[in-house]
Amino acid sequence: MNIKFGKIVVALTLTFCGLSLSACAVTQRSGISAPLVIQEQGSFSVGGTVISEPGTFDPITQGAYNPAGVSPAGQTLHGDHASVFYQIPENARKFPLVFWHGHGQTAKTWETTPDGREGFQNIFLRERYGVYLIDQPRRGRAARSTEATTITATPDEQLWFGIFRLGAWPNFYEGVQFSKAPETLNQFFRQMAPNTGPYNAEVNVAAVSELFNKIGKGILVTHSQSGGPGWRTAIKNDNIRAIVSFEPGGDFLFPEGEAPESIKLAGRTVTPPTVLMADFMRLTKIPIIVFYGDNIPKQPSQNPGQEQWRVFLEVAKTWRDVVNRHGGDVTIVHLPEIGIHGNTHFLMSDLNNLEIADQMSRFLEKKGLN
Amino acid sequence: MNIKFGKIVVALTLTFCGLSLSACAVTQRSGISAPLVIQEQGSFSVGGTVISEPGTFDPITQGAYNPAGVSPAGQTLHGDHASVFYQIPENARKFPLVFWHGHGQTAKTWETTPDGREGFQNIFLRERYGVYLIDQPRRGRAARSTEATTITATPDEQLWFGIFRLGAWPNFYEGVQFSKAPETLNQFFRQMAPNTGPYNAEVNVAAVSELFNKIGKGILVTHSQSGGPGWRTAIKNDNIRAIVSFEPGGDFLFPEGEAPESIKLAGRTVTPPTVLMADFMRLTKIPIIVFYGDNIPKQPSQNPGQEQWRVFLEVAKTWRDVVNRHGGDVTIVHLPEIGIHGNTHFLMSDLNNLEIADQMSRFLEKKGLN
Repeated sequence: MNIKFGKIVVALTLTFCGLSLSACAVTQRSGISAPLVIQEQGSFSVGGTVISEPGTFDPITQGAYNPAGVSPAGQTLHGDHASVFYQIPENARKFPLVFWHGHGQTAKTWETTPDGREGFQNIFLRERYGVYLIDQPRRGRAARSTEATTITATPDEQLWFGIFRLGAWPNFYEGVQFSKAPETLNQFFRQMAPNTGPYNAEVNVAAVSELFNKIGKGILVTHSQSGGPGWRTAIKNDNIRAIVSFEPGGDFLFPEGEAPESIKLAGRTVTPPTVLMADFMRLTKIPIIVFYGDNIPKQPSQNPGQEQWRVFLEVAKTWRDVVNRHGGDVTIVHLPEIGIHGNTHFLMSDLNNLEIADQMSRFLEKKGLN
Repeated sequence: MNIKFGKIVVALTLTFCGLSLSACAVTQRSGISAPLVIQEQGSFSVGGTVISEPGTFDPITQGAYNPAGVSPAGQTLHGDHASVFYQIPENARKFPLVFWHGHGQTAKTWETTPDGREGFQNIFLRERYGVYLIDQPRRGRAARSTEATTITATPDEQLWFGIFRLGAWPNFYEGVQFSKAPETLNQFFRQMAPNTGPYNAEVNVAAVSELFNKIGKGILVTHSQSGGPGWRTAIKNDNIRAIVSFEPGGDFLFPEGEAPESIKLAGRTVTPPTVLMADFMRLTKIPIIVFYGDNIPKQPSQNPGQEQWRVFLEVAKTWRDVVNRHGGDVTIVHLPEIGIHGNTHFLMSDLNNLEIADQMSRFLEKKGLN
């Protein structure tokens, strides 16, 4: 009888976690890792196109693997799709989160952090959100491109160390939310991945819009380079019910006649793009929050790794004002201004990523999206 | 009271699944999908190397992103690692399964099947195995290569339709275990991914051996092109306690002086490689099972998509005899000979993949590895 009673107690405890993952999340945040209860998980390709070579394929004369090359007559290539891995927790919330990585990254951005802690994938599963992790077209597992490219093996990591605001090589910024253990930087650099075809924002928008056609309403979470195509995808597809954007680049979309002047940066000029007013107005219909981290100076800087973010943050503020003047709901959070310090460009995997996740959760709760 | 009693019954049911996933697997196999209970999941890079450009990096003059190119002086590139996603279920069995994809594939090989059913990732999680899914160096999310390459966008899918033994384009083989719904072929083609650097088996062996150094003892599961480097990894690392190989290519390792003659195939010559006897003997110390599917002819065929597998199966049988003569434990299962028909080169995602998984489970049980 005692043993039986004991079993029932264990069962109830497990059920509590099973039916209320937010309780489990709290447990995890205090250092005890509860299991994830996944109702469904899997992967698929979505969107993309097909190219064909004229002619007729003959399986006898063209059917041998030849390391020297392929005889393409009559053959096809399916490419330019996105590749998606998804997990739906038990008792999932209504809207899933669709995570879209930035430049030189893959879905890995949202998985385990470079120092080995849980990333946004697990954190938000514990908060009972369904999660969809994208490899955008011509990147990672979605590598088949309809256009050729050459991948150089050019050493460039010290450049990214600066642009990703870990520091100014070889020094980390003081108080940066990034572990200085050498293995962390090793993991961080190794999560980069090159384009396997020419970068094309329109190709990416098309594939991610197809994803929202497939899964229905959800919340888009962008990072860095996916910020710009993220706005365009929301214009194209009203299944996107909100956008959370981590450090988007400078390509905020303005209505014609309302864009700020072009800005000169070392090596390039940034011209904020414009769209038709009818398209722009779509962005006023959904709540949007934009986060920027630390070590973004207020005054122009000689350090290009900081200067580009100073400029992008300025454009972001101008854009917020334009969208909100047209009836929109854009919030910009510059984290140091609310007392959160040391964040790099990779806020979602920084040492304080649970605090960043909390900020995002509160936004979703406030907007009734949880 | 009644309501409370009901809750307790629900709790007990969940617990039964939680503590005994094999019972859940049985449920799933009869069509009712029980949740997966994941104790831990995450991802990391492993192995690889670092190349450096001479000079000193200056974050001011070299720190700007320039679409026209990178100034590499003093910079590094971390590449040639494997990228690994893992999931450990609650109450996991002793040895995890390490899944290594084949030519033109990624970890996706083991995930959702092209027709949308569960792949080996989920099937073996339900059997309480930990699973590690590899993207090998220079592929998928492990795309950073220390050597440059050009990726052509050459249409070649009708070639692979034949080599992967779905049929002889445009016809499927009769009774093939592959759904003829057009979306299935669309998904199948889109799971291909090109090399992002020159293919190098030694680079792959090094990274996968490092994975076994990191995770300890486990079972290696290879497919097609990873078969050859799989044998070499087992020679290098005795944490590999068994190998399950699905349709390995012709590069079985023989001791010097005991290899069969070179074989001519359309477009190339296959020469079974040899290794030192001391290395070869490592392969006699672990149980190995090799599976081949259907539509492999007994007599030489004009159809190269079939002929290469006829030759590889012949080499496989010769190799089995040599390993077993030296005291090894190699089993070759040609599935049609045990009454399992219609399998393509992708046995793990074929329509009867649960039956194939059962064959693999029985082997692991028989060898005391479960």
